[in-house]
Amino acid sequence: MAKLVLLRHGQSRYNLEGRFTGWMDVDLSERGRAEAGEAGWLMKSSGLTFDIAFASVLKRAVRTLWIVLDEMDLMWIPALPCWRLNERFYGDLQGRSLKEVEEQYGKEQVARWRRGFLERPPAVETSDRRYPGQDPRYRDVPLSLLPRTESLQDTQKRLLPFWQALIGPELEKGKNVLVVSHGNIIRALAKHLENISDDDIEKVEIATAQPLVYELDEQMCLVGRSYLGSALIGGMERK
Amino acid sequence: MAKLVLLRHGQSRYNLEGRFTGWMDVDLSERGRAEAGEAGWLMKSSGLTFDIAFASVLKRAVRTLWIVLDEMDLMWIPALPCWRLNERFYGDLQGRSLKEVEEQYGKEQVARWRRGFLERPPAVETSDRRYPGQDPRYRDVPLSLLPRTESLQDTQKRLLPFWQALIGPELEKGKNVLVVSHGNIIRALAKHLENISDDDIEKVEIATAQPLVYELDEQMCLVGRSYLGSALIGGMERK
Repeated sequence: MAKLVLLRHGQSRYNLEGRFTGWMDVDLSERGRAEAGEAGWLMKSSGLTFDIAFASVLKRAVRTLWIVLDEMDLMWIPALPCWRLNERFYGDLQGRSLKEVEEQYGKEQVARWRRGFLERPPAVETSDRRYPGQDPRYRDVPLSLLPRTESLQDTQKRLLPFWQALIGPELEKGKNVLVVSHGNIIRALAKHLENISDDDIEKVEIATAQPLVYELDEQMCLVGRSYLGSALIGGMERK
Repeated sequence: MAKLVLLRHGQSRYNLEGRFTGWMDVDLSERGRAEAGEAGWLMKSSGLTFDIAFASVLKRAVRTLWIVLDEMDLMWIPALPCWRLNERFYGDLQGRSLKEVEEQYGKEQVARWRRGFLERPPAVETSDRRYPGQDPRYRDVPLSLLPRTESLQDTQKRLLPFWQALIGPELEKGKNVLVVSHGNIIRALAKHLENISDDDIEKVEIATAQPLVYELDEQMCLVGRSYLGSALIGGMERK
């Protein structure tokens, strides 16, 4: 029985400041580092271990992964970053404060952008410094695949080929896999794995640094799903 | 023109205490962490960048790699650990102090074990806690490949398949490659790349955390070799 653990990175500086992040490469806050350490400790003390790990190419995910692997004494496992595990690309909202965006567009519209499956926020131009076309980390990605904005569905579409090609085969081999990524990636993957409807996914939120554990059998059928130590984490006021 | 940089990890706790380390998984000392940061800074300020990195499965190498990647803003590149890049397996000397071993066997014998190409120190038994057969990080390695002791030649023999299968092909594609490893791995690789004789390799020592840069043309012929910023590092009393 293979285990898949999805872990949202710890609190980032933009989470702390209430800003839209998307592909902006901000680091963890101090609290985010502590949360990552706690997640690692929790997984280790639950007897979990991993054979391979994946992360986005964004610093807050890789930093979370490193802190977790250090805590679990697993610095030696392969850890592969891929842009397809990046947070949803939030277009022109990236870097802007939630408050400012709500004042401009209204709370309802912003809620639809944040939670809906098909809604796309305004796009960035390719001349915008937030457009990823100039960033060396995306130089091997065909320009046609680089987003200017994304709905959650768009995010899911670029995520699933990576899931099918890289993550799924490890699970089929019976390996335990850790994926350290972002709120909307975990929502998109949970939607796929649990067959959540387009409407119901609006209600799904993912807390930072709380390990979400899926158990899969040899046919890749889901046989279990739970937040690890959720009672304990609740008691630690981590919501 | 592809660049290959070989980097020995920063000072470890056993380096500091004057102990044989081999596959013992000791962490960096405080000075070792600082050295790793300096190496990263030096590479970044020299305009070096990397497409992929490799390390051993030992913590002092992975930690050095992480510090370097963080310093160079390259946390997003693939970083692959492999046991074939582990330090030479020092057999029964592992964990023992240089002083104690010299008192037991004499300075000359110890010098031959440390510097010679063919000499093997006393082996550990498979029941010894230092034998790697029980360590989960080696569970996918066939038992016949796990050492009980190694000469530098033995180390080179288990290193070269990894060089040929994983590192060489990246360089042939024109990628810049960083290898963070250990003194004897870098000696073994330098011997291979520079065609150093069995006798001459005895004189080659590798300082901690000093980037050794090789330039290779499309035919994988060596066209340059230098320590990066060696004058600067000499001036900083890093020998």
